[in-house]
Amino acid sequence: MEQELLDQINALIDETKNIIVCSTDENGFPNAKAMFKTEHDGLKTFLFSTNTSSMRVQQFLKNDRACIYFCGQSKINGLMLVGRMEVCTDHARKARLWADGCEIYYPLGIDDPDYCVLEFTAEQGNYYYNLSKHPFEIQ
Amino acid sequence: MEQELLDQINALIDETKNIIVCSTDENGFPNAKAMFKTEHDGLKTFLFSTNTSSMRVQQFLKNDRACIYFCGQSKINGLMLVGRMEVCTDHARKARLWADGCEIYYPLGIDDPDYCVLEFTAEQGNYYYNLSKHPFEIQ
Repeated sequence: MEQELLDQINALIDETKNIIVCSTDENGFPNAKAMFKTEHDGLKTFLFSTNTSSMRVQQFLKNDRACIYFCGQSKINGLMLVGRMEVCTDHARKARLWADGCEIYYPLGIDDPDYCVLEFTAEQGNYYYNLSKHPFEIQ
Repeated sequence: MEQELLDQINALIDETKNIIVCSTDENGFPNAKAMFKTEHDGLKTFLFSTNTSSMRVQQFLKNDRACIYFCGQSKINGLMLVGRMEVCTDHARKARLWADGCEIYYPLGIDDPDYCVLEFTAEQGNYYYNLSKHPFEIQ
């Protein structure tokens, strides 16, 4: 991919606070929900903090196909990453996203069974900019 | 639904310029793209203007299951509507969304075969607000 496009994509990820996370429901319909951006490794993996009991987690346990979307606010641009979502209940990844204040939502702490981490791993991307699409593979 | 929630939902729709439109790709992965909000009839139907040749239209021709998502900017709120997407190529609906300037994108005018309208019809909704979800049916 051209460096200029990659710079734009990285800027869009940086400025995005809420990422749209898409799953598939039990009737085969796409579903979407905004989730806070936390840690990520370039374009390849993105972590999200959520409730194990949430509808989204239950959907990903049955079907790990996912996409995440970054919606540009100022320009007509957007980034879609398509891949798989893993539901992580291990201490290490839960500790990684834990922060002061989380105990309000998860009173039992890091190992609260209702606290889990979603790890998205991207396989493909599509960057929309200036009415053109720029698809790319992610290794 | 309570009037207060309905008022919040309508305010969120009013303030949203770009709606996230979700489809399913040929490999069964959810896909997402921001599209301009145009006309809508309450919470039931939403129209979008797009290219017939676009990836999104080709996906909806094969699988009409859809969701549209409104992401709140100021509060932690969001609205998901789940339903079906119809690809419309009739003159009447194409004329309804046609505006001066569209000929830049569709040089053949309203009946340009690469111009079409997507009509989304909602069946269910889910409004997220204040860490709670409020699911509802749409008649």
